[in-house]
Amino acid sequence: MANNTLDNIHIILVGITHPGNIGASARAMKTMGLTQMRLVRPKQFPNAEATARACGADDILFNAQIFDSYEESLQDFHLVFGASARQREISWPVLTPRTCAEQALPIQAPVAIVFGRENSGLTNQELEYCNYLVQIPSDANFSSLNVAAAVQVIAYELRMEKLKNTKFDSALPSPASVENMERLYKHLEETLIDIKFLNPNHPRLLMRRLRRLFNRTQLIDSEVNILRGILTATQEK
Amino acid sequence: MANNTLDNIHIILVGITHPGNIGASARAMKTMGLTQMRLVRPKQFPNAEATARACGADDILFNAQIFDSYEESLQDFHLVFGASARQREISWPVLTPRTCAEQALPIQAPVAIVFGRENSGLTNQELEYCNYLVQIPSDANFSSLNVAAAVQVIAYELRMEKLKNTKFDSALPSPASVENMERLYKHLEETLIDIKFLNPNHPRLLMRRLRRLFNRTQLIDSEVNILRGILTATQEK
Repeated sequence: MANNTLDNIHIILVGITHPGNIGASARAMKTMGLTQMRLVRPKQFPNAEATARACGADDILFNAQIFDSYEESLQDFHLVFGASARQREISWPVLTPRTCAEQALPIQAPVAIVFGRENSGLTNQELEYCNYLVQIPSDANFSSLNVAAAVQVIAYELRMEKLKNTKFDSALPSPASVENMERLYKHLEETLIDIKFLNPNHPRLLMRRLRRLFNRTQLIDSEVNILRGILTATQEK
Repeated sequence: MANNTLDNIHIILVGITHPGNIGASARAMKTMGLTQMRLVRPKQFPNAEATARACGADDILFNAQIFDSYEESLQDFHLVFGASARQREISWPVLTPRTCAEQALPIQAPVAIVFGRENSGLTNQELEYCNYLVQIPSDANFSSLNVAAAVQVIAYELRMEKLKNTKFDSALPSPASVENMERLYKHLEETLIDIKFLNPNHPRLLMRRLRRLFNRTQLIDSEVNILRGILTATQEK
């Protein structure tokens, strides 16, 4: 059993009526790196609409395990989460997808995340097998996500949890050095004097305003080079 | 213009071919509390399949603004995010959906999040209008989410950001007090002695093990009452 990987996580779809939703769920899983699908009493499967909506995630459909019995489909799991939109009579421990992912991923044993029927979700009896409910915090007046959309959100949080020490944001190179920026500002100031936009005897706050703009922007070296090229061309005019 | 609310956020869908994806996007938006949709050159709209997949989010479809020109659809926005799966020739600043939500929600002016065609996304020319790209960190070998699934993930992060000071996890009441738990443990110990499962002269670690179990579980008052009821019934036997 793999440690701390997405291969431990199984998505179980119970009583799905529209085969397109099975295909869309497979696609959602595969985009996030999940591979293990189980189906409990799908109405139609295999099915051309499922394959079409899987959009290339056919391997997940092909490898999906199919069960007649809900209880049997859960036998080998060590932690079971049940996706649920509704408030239930008995308050069960409820987690957000984010907390679910934090709890599920470190488990070094098979984990199930169970999704119910399109119209009615999981029954109370089915939820009794779950350690936790997972609830996507949806709008109170329109709370029901499409099942494949719910799979997508929870799979996304699992992937974010797996990648949590990865630095994602900004694919840009490091900002230019102070030295390089000072050369730009000097060049800019000279040019502005040349074209008589800046009066060196009455500079006011112009250079400071321009510094604020470019420092906030965090120019990269190649952009400094472009701007200095423009300044040189301006000076040559 | 509303402050720090989801009403500032507009979802713009460009060149969508399958009307079902427009409907599914409307449903995804509405579940997360988003209301503002714009469509640029949709292939078929309005459309019965769009309405069917919206599954009750008809108001969003009905109020959607339709544009022939991409540029025109963006005129009144103060910040524009472009959803993008691919690496581009020129590195543009790229954010995760989470960082996108953190940046978008505090803006007190209209913000656009733009999604492109099913097969090819947004063109490089269209991306030039964007302040940032948003990329869902998908699997390198299978990176293309369905457009409505991508709308769902980003709308989910916007909602999570809006609700970020809300306490979600666990809908259970507070755990029982130490006083109440100690009464339970005393009752349990007496009962175990009564039924001769615990020998008071050789108690070993039994009570400590049971305390570990029940303390970890964080029993709530109603559960303490059930367990004490069982103990009383056992003693009466």
